[in-house]
Order: sequence, then C-alpha cells, then structure tokens
Amino acid sequence: DAASTPTSLSRDWLSVQEVVDAVSSSSCGAISVFIGTTREDELDGRKVIGLEYEAYELMAQSEFTKLCADIRERWPTVTHICVHHRLGWVRPVLPWQISSPHRHDSQQAIQRCIDQLKANIPIWKKEVYDTQDSSWKENAECSWSTRNKSSSESV
Amino acid sequence: DAASTPTSLSRDWLSVQEVVDAVSSSSCGAISVFIGTTREDELDGRKVIGLEYEAYELMAQSEFTKLCADIRERWPTVTHICVHHRLGWVRPVLPWQISSPHRHDSQQAIQRCIDQLKANIPIWKKEVYDTQDSSWKENAECSWSTRNKSSSESV
Repeated sequence: DAASTPTSLSRDWLSVQEVVDAVSSSSCGAISVFIGTTREDELDGRKVIGLEYEAYELMAQSEFTKLCADIRERWPTVTHICVHHRLGWVRPVLPWQISSPHRHDSQQAIQRCIDQLKANIPIWKKEVYDTQDSSWKENAECSWSTRNKSSSESV
Repeated sequence: DAASTPTSLSRDWLSVQEVVDAVSSSSCGAISVFIGTTREDELDGRKVIGLEYEAYELMAQSEFTKLCADIRERWPTVTHICVHHRLGWVRPVLPWQISSPHRHDSQQAIQRCIDQLKANIPIWKKEVYDTQDSSWKENAECSWSTRNKSSSESV
C-alpha cells in the first residue's frame, strides 16, 4: 500500500486505535507510537491541572510537512506517518505514529519527530494551575525561544 | 500513583486503548508504545499470511520480570510498564507501553525492552504461508539461537 502522511491539528479527540489503524500496513511489522499527556507537575506550591495549546496553524502545517519529508529521507523504509496534535484545552495531547517493516527505523524516526516538533513547530502551551493562575510556557528546546519571554495571566 | 508492571502472555486480543489506559499516570507526560504486527513478506514465491507464537510460559514470565527490573534500574523515572504478548495465531502481536515524566526515558526504555525481548525471552514464532506451508522461525537476535536449526512442516 502507498505511503501516507496524514497530519492534523485539531480541537477534537482522536482515539489511539484510530491512529494505529491509520498507519497499519501489511508490509509493516512495526508501529511506534508516542503519546504526550498532561503531567500534573507541582512547583512553587501550585499544581498543573491542564494544558492549553495554540498554534500558528498554517506555519505549523508547513513545518509538519517538512518534518515528514525529512523523516522519509533519513529512514527510507518508513511507510506510514500519522501526526495528530490537539489544540485548545487538552489531555492527552499528541499521538504520533510511524510504521516501518522493521522496528529500528520506526523507533528512531519517532524520536526525531518529537525532537523536531519541540524544536521547530510553532505550537504554544499554556499551563493552567490549581491556584487559578496560568502561564504560557515556551519550549526550552525551541530554536527561536528566549528563556525569559514567558508571561503569566489569570484564568 | 505507584509504579506498576503488568505483564501477560495470552491468546486474547487486547486493545491498544486498554494498554494505554494501563500506563497513563498524572505524574507522566510521555507514553511510548511499540506494536509488533504481521508483515506479509514474500520470499521464494510464497507469502506470509499469518504468525503463530508459542512460549515456554513460566520461563518467559520470569524473563519479563527480570527485563522490567533492568529497565527500572537503567531509567529510574520510568513509572508504568505494560507488556502484553499474544500467543497462538495472531495479528497484531505485542503492544508494549512505558510511561515516564519526560519523553527520552520512555523512548529509550521501550527500545531496550524490544531488543531484550528478541534476545532473551523464550517465545517462538511460526510463519504460515499462502502455499499451505509453515515454518518455525528462530530469532536471529537470540543469544541461544543457531541459524540453521529451523524446521519446516505442512499445515
């Protein structure tokens, strides 16, 4: 079956099974999945109770496309790639799935996907705390991030 | 929540969602999953149409326990591990899932899990072909395998 690369940014929930089905293939023996979830960190006496994501959607979509092309160039046996990143108030956040005939390619490819997503794709995250505060968090791994431009606001 | 390590060998199908639920945790932001599936290889004019797995169950269970202890020693932040390996006539075969607060630990841990499973755990695989033949395949990565002891039989 032909290689596919569905990518989506959406406010809707997608089940893990739907994403697994999207990458299953009779030519593949390996499916690697990464699911990002809300980690309820406690820091400075307040606890994260949820996350909110916003994106510059057009640019994020174009970065997803570039990233998937890069993955296919690095691991030519990669067959299907499915990227689903949620926006708005969410948990869990992102199931990413990659299938390949043998396991090493899909495992290495998924790690690069998530590393590059954190580094290059314009999606922002707001942590919401149990103290009614929230703050937009920048990604420390992001190439155009400056560690001190995050802002706080009340919810 | 306390770290858990459910492992099972079974003839029953387990949904990916059930396994994801087993490792989800409010202290974790990362879930890494590996799903082994039937790759319909074609070789020498015959095509694999399915796989059959058998295990030395007591020893496999004890190897799973050792492997999970090794993973926790190498990546102490790993929270939940869930191993499910199917036996009998199957597809898909094995969902393995590991959760950790940050992604690198769960990603590295799942790779080691699958590598060690292939190398040390007494589970045997029979390929069944569209020509009505079948053959028990040994695992080339297995420490006690000899490349030429595989046998063929008719089904």
